[in-house]
Amino acid sequence: MGTQAGIQGRDVVTLDTFSAQEIRAVTARARELKAGGFGTPLAGRSLAMVFFDPSLRTRASFAIAFGSLGGTVIDLVAGRDLWPLEMREGAVMDSVADEHVRDAARVLSEYADVIAIRALARGGDWAQARRDTVIVSFQKHATAPIFNMESVLDHPCQAWGDALTLEEALGEPKGKKIALVWCYHPKARPLAVPHGVGVMATTLGMNLSVARPPGYDFDPHVERTMSRAATASGGSVRFVEDMAEAVRDADVVYAASWGSLDLHASPEDERALRDRYRDRRVTRELMAGTREARFMHAMPIRRNVEADDAVVDAPGSLVIEQAANRLHVQRALFQEVLGV
Amino acid sequence: MGTQAGIQGRDVVTLDTFSAQEIRAVTARARELKAGGFGTPLAGRSLAMVFFDPSLRTRASFAIAFGSLGGTVIDLVAGRDLWPLEMREGAVMDSVADEHVRDAARVLSEYADVIAIRALARGGDWAQARRDTVIVSFQKHATAPIFNMESVLDHPCQAWGDALTLEEALGEPKGKKIALVWCYHPKARPLAVPHGVGVMATTLGMNLSVARPPGYDFDPHVERTMSRAATASGGSVRFVEDMAEAVRDADVVYAASWGSLDLHASPEDERALRDRYRDRRVTRELMAGTREARFMHAMPIRRNVEADDAVVDAPGSLVIEQAANRLHVQRALFQEVLGV
Amino acid sequence: MGTQAGIQGRDVVTLDTFSAQEIRAVTARARELKAGGFGTPLAGRSLAMVFFDPSLRTRASFAIAFGSLGGTVIDLVAGRDLWPLEMREGAVMDSVADEHVRDAARVLSEYADVIAIRALARGGDWAQARRDTVIVSFQKHATAPIFNMESVLDHPCQAWGDALTLEEALGEPKGKKIALVWCYHPKARPLAVPHGVGVMATTLGMNLSVARPPGYDFDPHVERTMSRAATASGGSVRFVEDMAEAVRDADVVYAASWGSLDLHASPEDERALRDRYRDRRVTRELMAGTREARFMHAMPIRRNVEADDAVVDAPGSLVIEQAANRLHVQRALFQEVLGV
Repeated sequence: MGTQAGIQGRDVVTLDTFSAQEIRAVTARARELKAGGFGTPLAGRSLAMVFFDPSLRTRASFAIAFGSLGGTVIDLVAGRDLWPLEMREGAVMDSVADEHVRDAARVLSEYADVIAIRALARGGDWAQARRDTVIVSFQKHATAPIFNMESVLDHPCQAWGDALTLEEALGEPKGKKIALVWCYHPKARPLAVPHGVGVMATTLGMNLSVARPPGYDFDPHVERTMSRAATASGGSVRFVEDMAEAVRDADVVYAASWGSLDLHASPEDERALRDRYRDRRVTRELMAGTREARFMHAMPIRRNVEADDAVVDAPGSLVIEQAANRLHVQRALFQEVLGV
Repeated sequence: MGTQAGIQGRDVVTLDTFSAQEIRAVTARARELKAGGFGTPLAGRSLAMVFFDPSLRTRASFAIAFGSLGGTVIDLVAGRDLWPLEMREGAVMDSVADEHVRDAARVLSEYADVIAIRALARGGDWAQARRDTVIVSFQKHATAPIFNMESVLDHPCQAWGDALTLEEALGEPKGKKIALVWCYHPKARPLAVPHGVGVMATTLGMNLSVARPPGYDFDPHVERTMSRAATASGGSVRFVEDMAEAVRDADVVYAASWGSLDLHASPEDERALRDRYRDRRVTRELMAGTREARFMHAMPIRRNVEADDAVVDAPGSLVIEQAANRLHVQRALFQEVLGV
Repeated sequence: MGTQAGIQGRDVVTLDTFSAQEIRAVTARARELKAGGFGTPLAGRSLAMVFFDPSLRTRASFAIAFGSLGGTVIDLVAGRDLWPLEMREGAVMDSVADEHVRDAARVLSEYADVIAIRALARGGDWAQARRDTVIVSFQKHATAPIFNMESVLDHPCQAWGDALTLEEALGEPKGKKIALVWCYHPKARPLAVPHGVGVMATTLGMNLSVARPPGYDFDPHVERTMSRAATASGGSVRFVEDMAEAVRDADVVYAASWGSLDLHASPEDERALRDRYRDRRVTRELMAGTREARFMHAMPIRRNVEADDAVVDAPGSLVIEQAANRLHVQRALFQEVLGV
């Protein structure tokens, strides 16, 4: 079939490395695959999935996308199938690390046509965590394309699937208003999903309104990326505290939760701060202030904590479509990156 | 090839939801596949296997059956790949459960054409355990067909494979005598296999004789199901205590072990009761009272505890055929349920 | 395509059961596959991988080789998917073992066309460990061919891949000098790789020079096998202590590390002995004494401990080719053993 998006051989690690045109070309191909079937263009190809953290939706959508196109998938779980990895260049490896990431990445590149990695934050300072050392090290040394199955900073395949869901639900996303609202969750959740969704929405020309309590800003570099993307696309981005203000006249309300970056190294303090905002959740009353907005969430969702059942199960809810579209976009992405 | 059994789209969760005709149609298809090969009719299809408990034979037979027909298989292990699941409707999810079974089941249905689940009892009262909450909740919410890889109450694919083994060994099972004998095992084993085998045998018109010590009855609802099935099929079912009486003139002796339901919530007491019956095992002497009966066991078998080597390894033993037939029946079941 | 090596149906457990001609026929086929592509000759076939110990390279190369040829692969992890196995014939199984290896091996043979096993030493006396009870028991009872994914004594698929790498790098290996040098490693590593490489090199007619410190001999039976192989092939084998002496005029330097067999049951003493040789590593200075030798290592490698970065990353280093060739040789081996 050949490629349509012109992204053959590229890493899919952060969404901001792709243009609006490239994002749209992939979702277009996903729609074709969804409508028309797919065959086995990846016969003889292989995907190595490397998990430093567990996963359901991402694992399932990656593995089934690649396998259903005829490819072979292997799972490698760090601490079980992988040796402890040395990340420092030139290290004298006389301690716990049995293998250098340079060697692990180069060897996996010989076995697999694509390497997918999931590695979330391990606590500590945000300034250190945001370097995304694991996936960046694999990118540096691997010769095969790297896919991000969620890192500290980004979750591009989630956001890409959401782009398809937005196109299906709204038609052209450009000019539509999306409210990304921080909701309470008993745990400090990663930043990757809201980061990715914010970059995707601004890149596609949407008017993004983020509602979050004090202390729950995004990574400042990512915020700047969103601003630049909005400027380039004719969209906009605005950060407010009040949920009602953020969702006013919105076409889409996207609920998410994330931890405070300022308190990334102090989980106890973070919890105390977060607990002040236990009441922030999406209710039917909140949705009443929108333009009959569709509801989105990347799942798993804490029902009646992040959003009420009445919202999650309403006809306008897109949560199942979002999950389903991850599979269709993943099939498109693998074919585009592998050039088949 | 189209379907032959007319069970397209059905859940395979308990054997009593299938008629004798449906059971036979599937074993007939399994015999065809066994003799004639199979191709890749499941190319592009996917199976999600969800394990709340570990498995060898079931895991291997399900995965190889689906994969060898061209499909893609993913393994999901609860506590590793799955979030802790909330089962209660309308719950405010502010505790440990990260995802509602409603959402997990609906999302998996978007990714997989078949969902297979293994979830055994977690102790506690039998009245509660027998509700089979995990698999029943998935059945309720999933839109994809659900396969039971062994639940608290039933193990239909084991019993279905045994039906094929009986047909191959005995010709027509109807009218033949099968003795299902409780044997000692150091652990309290699940009820699912004897339940499924008993329902299968009575549904196919066999004369079922169950030998068990006092306190080791089946679930009363399942016993009634067996009685009704026997009445409908022209078979019979009888419960006795004495092993020799049960196996007299039997065509098949099926050894199994299971825990006492009355003591399901009291493992210590159960163990004390079970230990009184340490001598109940299948010996060559016991087999001498049969009509040169074939020997069956679902495996894994405790050799020289449940049955002597001389019985397990005798020419009349069907234990390897039973295990092998799980693969052939599984290939037939997947094709029939998926309508290919 | 038919077989070329005449090894259909054979177990691949120890390399010394294969002739030089058979080894070369398989590497020849691997070169053809590497150059020309492969199709899906294993469609409908299945591989069961049984892990008693974890693995990266072997797991990945076996699974991708089999899967990319169209076959289905399942992973079984002992202690998770397998019941504890009884190895003794005639045992009364009233203790912890839930299944006899006889039954596990026979059942897996019904499901899988090939069974691959990884089972390293569990400590204790070498005389006991070297019996390789797990893989030998599977060999005894299985009806499907058994592949060794590394056992106590041998790692034939690693050595077979290295044979291909040697052919590619040196042309005809016969008459070339290979130095197998013991290097320091913080852990006592298994003997399987050096055993397999030594047998491979002597079988192919190479002049093998082994440098190891006192107390680090190979298994005496395996040393005799190497001597016999060298005599038959026109090669030679020599054991020395000095690294510089061993590598003089070598065409290849193969770095490896292994524990002391004499102290196999005394890990503390072994560590104390090994720590005396912390300085044994491959440096650029050591390589200067060779005939511009290529550098080999089976990986994972402890950089700057076993060998310096300057050696591992030098143009003459073959470590990535070695890892890559495991995949190509594995594709050839599966096809030859399965006769397709």
